[in-house]
Amino acid sequence: MTPPTEPSAFSEPGGFASGGREGARVLDAINSPADLKKLPVEELPRLAQDIREEIIAVTSCNGGHVGPNLGVVELTIALHRVFSTPADQITFDVSHQAYVHKLLTGRRGGFFKKLRHTGGASGFCNRAESPHDSFGAGHAGTALSAALGMAAARDLHGTHEHVVAVCGDAAFTCGITMEALNNIVTTTKRLIVILNDNEWSIARNVGAISRYLMRLSTHPTYNKIHADLEKFFRSLRHGPEMHRTWMKWKRETKDFFVESSLFEKYGLRYIGPVDGHDIGELVSKLEFAKQSDVPILVHVLTKKGLGLPAAINSPEKFHGASPYDPETGETKKTAPAPAWQDVFGRALTQFAKADPRIVGITAAMSSGTGINRLAAELPRQFFDVGIAEEHAVVFAAGLATKNVRPVVAIYSTFLQRSLDPILHDVCLQNLPVTFCMDRAGLSPNDGPTHHGLFDIAYLRLAPNAIIMQPKDEDELVDMMHTALITRAPVFIRYPRGAAQGVPIKPAPAALPIGKAEVLREGAHAMIWALGTMVHDALALSDRLAAENNLAIGVVNARFAKPPDAGLLLAHAAKTPLLVTMEDHVLTGGFGSAVMETLQQAGVTVPVERIGWPDTFVCHGTDTATLRAGHGLSPDAIHKRVLRAITTHAADRHGHVCPGQNAIRF
Amino acid sequence: MTPPTEPSAFSEPGGFASGGREGARVLDAINSPADLKKLPVEELPRLAQDIREEIIAVTSCNGGHVGPNLGVVELTIALHRVFSTPADQITFDVSHQAYVHKLLTGRRGGFFKKLRHTGGASGFCNRAESPHDSFGAGHAGTALSAALGMAAARDLHGTHEHVVAVCGDAAFTCGITMEALNNIVTTTKRLIVILNDNEWSIARNVGAISRYLMRLSTHPTYNKIHADLEKFFRSLRHGPEMHRTWMKWKRETKDFFVESSLFEKYGLRYIGPVDGHDIGELVSKLEFAKQSDVPILVHVLTKKGLGLPAAINSPEKFHGASPYDPETGETKKTAPAPAWQDVFGRALTQFAKADPRIVGITAAMSSGTGINRLAAELPRQFFDVGIAEEHAVVFAAGLATKNVRPVVAIYSTFLQRSLDPILHDVCLQNLPVTFCMDRAGLSPNDGPTHHGLFDIAYLRLAPNAIIMQPKDEDELVDMMHTALITRAPVFIRYPRGAAQGVPIKPAPAALPIGKAEVLREGAHAMIWALGTMVHDALALSDRLAAENNLAIGVVNARFAKPPDAGLLLAHAAKTPLLVTMEDHVLTGGFGSAVMETLQQAGVTVPVERIGWPDTFVCHGTDTATLRAGHGLSPDAIHKRVLRAITTHAADRHGHVCPGQNAIRF
Repeated sequence: MTPPTEPSAFSEPGGFASGGREGARVLDAINSPADLKKLPVEELPRLAQDIREEIIAVTSCNGGHVGPNLGVVELTIALHRVFSTPADQITFDVSHQAYVHKLLTGRRGGFFKKLRHTGGASGFCNRAESPHDSFGAGHAGTALSAALGMAAARDLHGTHEHVVAVCGDAAFTCGITMEALNNIVTTTKRLIVILNDNEWSIARNVGAISRYLMRLSTHPTYNKIHADLEKFFRSLRHGPEMHRTWMKWKRETKDFFVESSLFEKYGLRYIGPVDGHDIGELVSKLEFAKQSDVPILVHVLTKKGLGLPAAINSPEKFHGASPYDPETGETKKTAPAPAWQDVFGRALTQFAKADPRIVGITAAMSSGTGINRLAAELPRQFFDVGIAEEHAVVFAAGLATKNVRPVVAIYSTFLQRSLDPILHDVCLQNLPVTFCMDRAGLSPNDGPTHHGLFDIAYLRLAPNAIIMQPKDEDELVDMMHTALITRAPVFIRYPRGAAQGVPIKPAPAALPIGKAEVLREGAHAMIWALGTMVHDALALSDRLAAENNLAIGVVNARFAKPPDAGLLLAHAAKTPLLVTMEDHVLTGGFGSAVMETLQQAGVTVPVERIGWPDTFVCHGTDTATLRAGHGLSPDAIHKRVLRAITTHAADRHGHVCPGQNAIRF
Repeated sequence: MTPPTEPSAFSEPGGFASGGREGARVLDAINSPADLKKLPVEELPRLAQDIREEIIAVTSCNGGHVGPNLGVVELTIALHRVFSTPADQITFDVSHQAYVHKLLTGRRGGFFKKLRHTGGASGFCNRAESPHDSFGAGHAGTALSAALGMAAARDLHGTHEHVVAVCGDAAFTCGITMEALNNIVTTTKRLIVILNDNEWSIARNVGAISRYLMRLSTHPTYNKIHADLEKFFRSLRHGPEMHRTWMKWKRETKDFFVESSLFEKYGLRYIGPVDGHDIGELVSKLEFAKQSDVPILVHVLTKKGLGLPAAINSPEKFHGASPYDPETGETKKTAPAPAWQDVFGRALTQFAKADPRIVGITAAMSSGTGINRLAAELPRQFFDVGIAEEHAVVFAAGLATKNVRPVVAIYSTFLQRSLDPILHDVCLQNLPVTFCMDRAGLSPNDGPTHHGLFDIAYLRLAPNAIIMQPKDEDELVDMMHTALITRAPVFIRYPRGAAQGVPIKPAPAALPIGKAEVLREGAHAMIWALGTMVHDALALSDRLAAENNLAIGVVNARFAKPPDAGLLLAHAAKTPLLVTMEDHVLTGGFGSAVMETLQQAGVTVPVERIGWPDTFVCHGTDTATLRAGHGLSPDAIHKRVLRAITTHAADRHGHVCPGQNAIRF
């Protein structure tokens, strides 16, 4: 493996801003894959270097998936030398490694410099962004299925374009990939799978497949076996004859030998391992793959983070990094309060120390969820199952049947994978599994594949489920404690990033299930806020008091399921309006739960629901920008609630509540 | 493979009712696995025969999974001879093959005779039914994950019981199983996996794994290779010497040879194939597996339907059969109208004939969904992907990117597997994939793992999704036509069983998206009914008119998303009460969509929602029984709606609507 020439950005931090050098870059002449194809071979290493510099320059400012992209620079160049998008289709699994692809397909310059910010390039492939993005993604394991669909479509149409799926090794820990793999050979004769093997998913890879690939690449018995055999036979007295016999035996036992690779058991031709940083070798192997009349897998070995020493030394940190100093690798910003994830990780470790029945499970998101602390301190009580969200949940259910108390730490958006296990395995059997759902709410820079805006709606339908969201990190610990002493499935959701910065009391409290907390009474309306929206509700209440002379109460709802029916009905009876606030879509969310509760009690009362509208929220610079773009700025919410109070107070009673001064507008 | 003695039930149809013979049965002495263990070996074949007779007798009356259970009689006997439940745990994948297990674990007799009926045995494992059922199921692919969880729990506790997972070959087409397989070797040293290989999932198995297993069992290169090699080498001139060389080479290349089975690549020891109808051989192999200090897979070959000629000849029909004549195999009942599934299959085939871009996709449910007609007539436009619901949906998305119009035919309950692909791959990219969701509503005999009561709630949260339900089969065809000309994801739900028996017009109509159909006007209330509930609504309206002198309108809602907001608001303005009716849970369902629509327009109007409560609905004799058990009998609904009309009509206007006679109670 040839490491690339050390890019000069390392000695020139912030190099992408140094306009003087930029004019000379090879990258600047690449406006489309056609330009890349015209480039003399000898300029390709320089192009690779330019791309590395650009990625480091942009991600050190904007954050992003540094490591995965630095690893696939040569691979992506080779792909675009050999294939012609958009006529050919390349699907990137997860597609966090598509920055290079974006730079080569007309998205370099200002658009790329705004990577993951409002108006800039998405951090993932996106069909709306470019015709070169044949398929969008953000969750792992879909590229093979999507590519197989495209290949089948091509075969139906009778055309001849190429379809290529680029998958990381971790994709093969994921069920969808394996389902697709099982279908390739019976679906098409022409599909090219690139296995980008860097030994990492996000954390270091786990499981049998990972071990298998390791053996395949480090002890490449399989590939060298022909050569080895020949050498071996020649060294023996009856060698040549034995070699002939061997070949005969091999023919007679038919597929036995050629099936020795896992992928060949699935009917794919296997070639590799290929040095993923040697453009020449990559191009030659891809050209070979292009001619294959059977589905083929090219096993490419890459080095995650190549070109940025800090990323090589800390691959997990630089998988998806916050803005960093490109020289030292230090993360630039520090949050004012501990992250929710850190509070979770610390609390879980404490609970697990006190009770050895408590175990933690993650689906390849050890550091992202903060569960790595448990992994470090109590490895026996920790399971990383790979990118296998369905297995994670059924596995937890199995543990729970035998007096173990599993805690599944998972991003809200990835838990979408587990709806069926949640219903069919956990809730139907009412097993005490606790789900700690990270990134519930917006994940602004990542965009629609990563926002956690749907979980209440898809979990609330499950009988036996209990769903909570804490207003601050102290309450998170209370909720974890409550979940662990409750014999039922409990789901706790909390957002990405910094918590409220409140102190955590020494001993957690057990919260009564389905009981809300009244923070402030108010005659004109009661706001029922879930989780961190409590703070927005308090601010809104302050503002409505100060600016509009209104007394608006605030309730920390705590439970999205079961909602506090008793308190809701009491408030419905005494206030002209109930307002709900949630960091979740309105469709089927917490506000709907409130309306359902009132309806089932036969109460008809005006409700104003504040939450995300029925649309996918794109990526953006920050939460405030995205909220403002969807009518959820503090001003917009203030206006809506004020209008609702006016309308409904008048509607219902014909007058403003007695004993209050007039509303000011 | 030794076929069992022909059970005498074949010559004595209805044999299980012939009390005279029953007294002499070996089965009658088996009240627990302990009794089975005491039985002399020579009585085991007779026990197997008794079990076959009992299964045929009961399933011929009640329907059920005949074929799978007849195939595992000897295997289950062997399992209970070797292992001791409930101290040891056996998890059955899908668990439709657990009838034998039930008969051997204290559930024979009257309880089993009421199989799949109210008060009788469930058709699946159920933790609430018996401590011998370590894990419930109904969907495929979960047994390995659950068993691995149990094994991990055992290892944590430091105890020594055995954990056994019994999986069909089709489970290995399913992603969860492969996710679990990848985790076994890194999680435990002791797990026993039984691969019950009968070459069938429900339909004949598909994909590479199936082909691989076929080779393994029919041309057992792998197992016999030692013997074959020895023979082969002996036949050669330098044979013995070459054999020694071979053994040396094998040692030197280490794991190469022992890894030649797929399962060994995953770190499992592999033994088999074992004759699944030879109790002696099974017991000896299971005893060996019990001693294994690495996870082990025992490959057992069974014959689906063994003991019932009709089931052997029509394995798909007898996978899950309706009541049948045990002699002829004829299905007993015929429905008065064509099944929804048949209408779907015929219509899809016609559409696909007219437009070659239309393709059908099923996840191993070809005959269940009625898509087998397409498979027979237009095989190029048909894909059976195996039990791989996630892949099915991403594959469809891939097809849809290239001007193909995929129709995914799937049971509502199994589509739960695909929530993430629906959100992340189909709806986010707004791809025109049509989902025809069979078994939406109750599947009474099957129970909670098969009812399709959650789909509106988990689909409605997806932006861009369009959700419809037809009132009759003619409208189903209109909806399919509408879906196929709409460039968006469309979900059509319809129930199990017979449709309404209405004629289907020659040319389908395109329905306007989001528009409902008023069937009957009414001043006292408007019922918005979805799908087949329209007929219940009309009957209720008739009854309220006749018995209570009320004019109740009925709307065929057609769309659960988007609901017809304009018409809803018009009705809210002119009627004192809106009633919604749906065959779905109330949580987040159609009624909630109606309330949300009204709320978002700022309208506060009484709504009475009729649907399933927030609880899992068990299995039962028929829909009427289950509905009555959950407050949804016609009488109960009549009473509720009447009460709501009285309350809200008075509430809102202080009087009954003008121009109407008094309500009678």
